[in-house]
Amino acid sequence: MIEGKNFIGATYSKKGDSFLQASNPKTNKLLPEKFYITTSQEIEQAFKKAGSAFDQYKNLSGAKKADFLEAIAEEILNLGDELIQRAVAESGLPEGRFQGERGRTVNQIKMFAGLLRDGSWVDARIDRAQPDREPLPKADIRNMLFPLGPVVVFGASNFPLAFSTAGGDTASALAAGCPVIVKSHESHPGTNELVSRAILKAAERTGMPDGVFSSLNGKADVGEKLVKHPSAKAVGFTGSFAAGTAIFKNAAARDEPIPVYAEMGSVNPVFLLDEKLSSGAESIAETYAGSVTLGKGQFCTNPGLLIGIESDNLNTFAKNLGEKLAEYTPDCMLNEGVAKNYRAQRKEILSQDGVEVITSPADEPGLTGAASLAAVKASVFLENDELQEEVFGPFTIVVKCKDSSEMEKVAKKLNGQLTITFMGTEKELIAHAPLINIGREKAGRVIFNNAPTGVEVCPSMQHGGPFPATTDSKFTSVGTGAIRRFARPIAFQDCPEELLPDELKDSNPLGIYRLVDGEFEN
Amino acid sequence: MIEGKNFIGATYSKKGDSFLQASNPKTNKLLPEKFYITTSQEIEQAFKKAGSAFDQYKNLSGAKKADFLEAIAEEILNLGDELIQRAVAESGLPEGRFQGERGRTVNQIKMFAGLLRDGSWVDARIDRAQPDREPLPKADIRNMLFPLGPVVVFGASNFPLAFSTAGGDTASALAAGCPVIVKSHESHPGTNELVSRAILKAAERTGMPDGVFSSLNGKADVGEKLVKHPSAKAVGFTGSFAAGTAIFKNAAARDEPIPVYAEMGSVNPVFLLDEKLSSGAESIAETYAGSVTLGKGQFCTNPGLLIGIESDNLNTFAKNLGEKLAEYTPDCMLNEGVAKNYRAQRKEILSQDGVEVITSPADEPGLTGAASLAAVKASVFLENDELQEEVFGPFTIVVKCKDSSEMEKVAKKLNGQLTITFMGTEKELIAHAPLINIGREKAGRVIFNNAPTGVEVCPSMQHGGPFPATTDSKFTSVGTGAIRRFARPIAFQDCPEELLPDELKDSNPLGIYRLVDGEFEN
Repeated sequence: MIEGKNFIGATYSKKGDSFLQASNPKTNKLLPEKFYITTSQEIEQAFKKAGSAFDQYKNLSGAKKADFLEAIAEEILNLGDELIQRAVAESGLPEGRFQGERGRTVNQIKMFAGLLRDGSWVDARIDRAQPDREPLPKADIRNMLFPLGPVVVFGASNFPLAFSTAGGDTASALAAGCPVIVKSHESHPGTNELVSRAILKAAERTGMPDGVFSSLNGKADVGEKLVKHPSAKAVGFTGSFAAGTAIFKNAAARDEPIPVYAEMGSVNPVFLLDEKLSSGAESIAETYAGSVTLGKGQFCTNPGLLIGIESDNLNTFAKNLGEKLAEYTPDCMLNEGVAKNYRAQRKEILSQDGVEVITSPADEPGLTGAASLAAVKASVFLENDELQEEVFGPFTIVVKCKDSSEMEKVAKKLNGQLTITFMGTEKELIAHAPLINIGREKAGRVIFNNAPTGVEVCPSMQHGGPFPATTDSKFTSVGTGAIRRFARPIAFQDCPEELLPDELKDSNPLGIYRLVDGEFEN
Repeated sequence: MIEGKNFIGATYSKKGDSFLQASNPKTNKLLPEKFYITTSQEIEQAFKKAGSAFDQYKNLSGAKKADFLEAIAEEILNLGDELIQRAVAESGLPEGRFQGERGRTVNQIKMFAGLLRDGSWVDARIDRAQPDREPLPKADIRNMLFPLGPVVVFGASNFPLAFSTAGGDTASALAAGCPVIVKSHESHPGTNELVSRAILKAAERTGMPDGVFSSLNGKADVGEKLVKHPSAKAVGFTGSFAAGTAIFKNAAARDEPIPVYAEMGSVNPVFLLDEKLSSGAESIAETYAGSVTLGKGQFCTNPGLLIGIESDNLNTFAKNLGEKLAEYTPDCMLNEGVAKNYRAQRKEILSQDGVEVITSPADEPGLTGAASLAAVKASVFLENDELQEEVFGPFTIVVKCKDSSEMEKVAKKLNGQLTITFMGTEKELIAHAPLINIGREKAGRVIFNNAPTGVEVCPSMQHGGPFPATTDSKFTSVGTGAIRRFARPIAFQDCPEELLPDELKDSNPLGIYRLVDGEFEN
């Protein structure tokens, strides 16, 4: 049974009087459970517990932390169908989607457990002493990554499992050795409660300190208090540009500024080269119709700009894409705000001078969002910054360039992106190396001959990109690299062996990769 | 001959009417050369050139960039005694110091050249395709670090060579593949001009694109314009808390926020344990008298807090230290501002309730700063935040604790630091593991049984630390790790072999370390 209380570590708490309720976007009706909004006192308690937990948790071995993560994965699976049904009710997304998303969530938690068992992620570096060096002796210096401290994680509406309570931010922060305080997303507080219980059960089972995880309900002002709390040391966020930049500014204005890893979405431009189109405009249109509407257009990697050179092939592609998008049955979006914003943002774009509507928005009953396609000349696009603002939903724009040179101008004009895609035959991709070179500067991931949707969870993934895609292009929120967001190097100079962490001891008891006197060893 | 013009890439430029002049702090008299303050138009030109240069420079091989760096090192040495004499005249620091600092500067440039020739710094990660994977095929993804773009570097008054024009920020940014625009320090514009010429000569010799390096004179408003320029992608700074946080706030408030690596100094607390003191309070006092006055107290790692438990040993230490500091002959500080601030900040601290003066400030003619020692009870220290503000100069405070528990309270109360030091016998260090554990959270480098001054340039060095020591504790400004500040990962998905950078090609033509399908290979 869902209780609607907050979790201050292992303790249920309900100090507030006001509450929020989730809605079912299918029916646009409130779900019955009340979730009590966190009070300032409860926030204080959560940070107090997180601080104490940090003192112990940071010193646990990688293996112990891996036990905890693996237990979380198990306990999430143990929630069984209750979790799936609640996530469906709170998001309007289909059951199959959550079976997939749960698998991804569990796998990425296990991936971090594997990273901890391997142990090499700490980037250990050892430069041994040279007492006889002239003119000055060289000290023994050893360096590795250590956790930053308590991390605030915001749940994301579009991934109630994989980017929320036990999503990539939480998993990577816990793996780094940081306690986590989750601000649950208002759209899926019930899903959050179930997952939070799984995490706390895992914490109890594996003997983790109380306070290693807390989960708090509330609106934007609760989030703001969490970000401004002096004990918060970093923030993970996935969501809108407006919310992400507000968090970033609050964090930068603190007495002690803290890092904010906000992934704020992207229009994921796609460059369609002509020879490739000529070999199969229709099948590419089919791929892209699927990618534009995947997750009902509510992924951060849905393609929102399709850029090609004016030609019969491009026209065929646009026509086919338009027809396929017209066949898409409008379905409910994540919540009322998302549906309203989608319609308003799309309307705004469609009302711009020079924008041609290819697939008109169909009837959109309730909170549904119809797939829509527009087209614009590159010359118009180049003069109107609004045309590259993200429309969160199943909407995309074909940008028609006169020639390669105009295509390069469009590439130069692009804002920072999570992804940029090039569809071309091998020969024409090589001929377009300068275009790809420009595009590379704009994105975190450069994709060839596939749609940008679909983010593999692996060590080489980069899910991030230049602002405004994220607030810190140097880090990824997906893949093993995500752990580095929550850790900093500390060097030990002439430290007695007994006081060194195992990772830095002479004997390398964990058998990890280390850079010793400039050479990799393990 | 020093010309006082700005360097817009390889072009000398003098568009402005106003100028600045350096002073010789020994005489407090102006040096004759006029350095023309950069105009907005010149700033625009420098960024335009930097942008064009970036397009070429970023795609040069590591070996080519290493040639450039090594040529810089050579050309700096070729400046010979002219450089040393100018640096002496502009800083008041002795000749021997600059012979040493030049060696360090040249060596760290060569270290980055070596890092580029090795090539593994790009952190290449490859996850190969699995076309038959169920339920979905796995794409080929390859990831490595790429440069951010033009970097603004501020010269630092206290290291006219090693942290200025061709210092660690410039060397690491150029190594990463970023063009650099230096804002010269007002105290040593002549030194800056000579070093800038060496860099530009090296750029010409090795065929680097025009704009890979520019050097501009001006005051704080020129720096502000550089930080706010849309083409700037990152900032490196070493200097005061006030200037560093102003830059940080300007960078965070931009339409596109950019990272600022500001190293803003530190009081570098030292914990003196009793058994260690009992074995040689006098020799430790001698070591610390040297460390407090090293560089006339103008290093970022001079120890400003010496924390021990009240005892005869601590009293002997304080007495000895006071005597040795009283023997120090006041010498000129870096410039008038530094000398005035030193005296004012010291006066402010000495006027606080409960602060006992051990070595009174001696006569301080001209711009000299005398070494001074104060003492305070920990109970007073714990109640007065001002007592841990940095006094930039040869000044330090002994903090007397009642017992170990109060010592831990002092450790908990400390702000973020570059370094924290523990002086203790091996036995008592192990017994004080909880204290060291607290201290570790406060600093970037934890030192045992040595003074904090002296920063080894090597892969394991961490010269950085939690705010307010720096604005980003995840990075170091000294050592090979410094390069990571100026690079971000980009992933390539299913990229044709011919378009991949050499670092990511199947055959690994550069023979670098790579993480391939989760295993290190080279």
